[in-house]
Amino acid sequence: MQVIKKQSGAAFKLKKGQKLKVIDAEGEQVSDMVLFNAKDRREKISSGKTLDFEESVLISSGHFLWSNRSNKMAEILEDTNGRNDFLLAPCSPETFKVMYDDYDGYHPSCFENLYTSLEEFEIQPDDIPTAFNIFMNVQFDEKGKISVEPPLSKAGDYVLFEAKMDLIVALTACSAEDSNNGSFKPIHYEIVK
Amino acid sequence: MQVIKKQSGAAFKLKKGQKLKVIDAEGEQVSDMVLFNAKDRREKISSGKTLDFEESVLISSGHFLWSNRSNKMAEILEDTNGRNDFLLAPCSPETFKVMYDDYDGYHPSCFENLYTSLEEFEIQPDDIPTAFNIFMNVQFDEKGKISVEPPLSKAGDYVLFEAKMDLIVALTACSAEDSNNGSFKPIHYEIVK
Repeated sequence: MQVIKKQSGAAFKLKKGQKLKVIDAEGEQVSDMVLFNAKDRREKISSGKTLDFEESVLISSGHFLWSNRSNKMAEILEDTNGRNDFLLAPCSPETFKVMYDDYDGYHPSCFENLYTSLEEFEIQPDDIPTAFNIFMNVQFDEKGKISVEPPLSKAGDYVLFEAKMDLIVALTACSAEDSNNGSFKPIHYEIVK
Repeated sequence: MQVIKKQSGAAFKLKKGQKLKVIDAEGEQVSDMVLFNAKDRREKISSGKTLDFEESVLISSGHFLWSNRSNKMAEILEDTNGRNDFLLAPCSPETFKVMYDDYDGYHPSCFENLYTSLEEFEIQPDDIPTAFNIFMNVQFDEKGKISVEPPLSKAGDYVLFEAKMDLIVALTACSAEDSNNGSFKPIHYEIVK
């Protein structure tokens, strides 16, 4: 079991057929996930392709995560919480400037934690796509109004993915107050063979 | 006035402060639009940043289109129809394979029409992000279920954008039957100073 400390990130390889369990160990925490084809980093997770092919804004058990080249990157085998977000980009330094009234100088962000974790794989900040935001509770109504609410996940909730190609995976323990009810916590993960 | 013929595309430069009017000349037609920073193509339109900062799934008059670097790329000054989509990736050859039962061989697509139009600006297929799909009528319910419906746009409906930085713009006249009620038509556009 690996631990991603609060407001940090991790990146690692996941081989085709391996399973990845992402666990909200303490509850009400979000993990932003991005995926890249390990053999060609220009292929990566795509919100637009996934929502299109799965015909759903909400992505959970039984759905696939698709790439910008229209290939299946991962399948969601289990999802004990059932609410994830695939609309919003990872929180970045600008998120706190634009969206948070109390912004004052440096703030850790998922965007920074993703690209610094991915540096060793020669992936640059501009390469970071919209992430699959595990446990993130983004509500929307028919008029399109979006609100970021506290996660519904309880301690021990998890999402289990199976890689459909050799992947580079990056995960965060989210840094944004609005996403995790103002309480920064770790995220745990485990690679299951 | 420029005409994009049915199932084709166009790409051009738009300077900061210039206005672009995209017109559904005959009604019920969709135009996929992508934007790049003319001075650095690695900065481009981002659905995830736009939905986040505008706090809405539905993007129309008064909203900005934001980049992956959290900068404003364009403002929507007018929108006579009021329904656009920013969830779904441009239709690609695989769209017709995965989503359409009657797929049989080659099918024109917005994805191909975007990247072939953008070749002259040294933008590659892998660089194409989720497009802002003007006039596209994607309905969704609270459970997230997505359906692509015929556009609500009437002949002459338009969206007027103002560039907030020097841009490379690509537009299509959409190639997907489901997006334009099975009737392929041109899209008109005009650069207004």
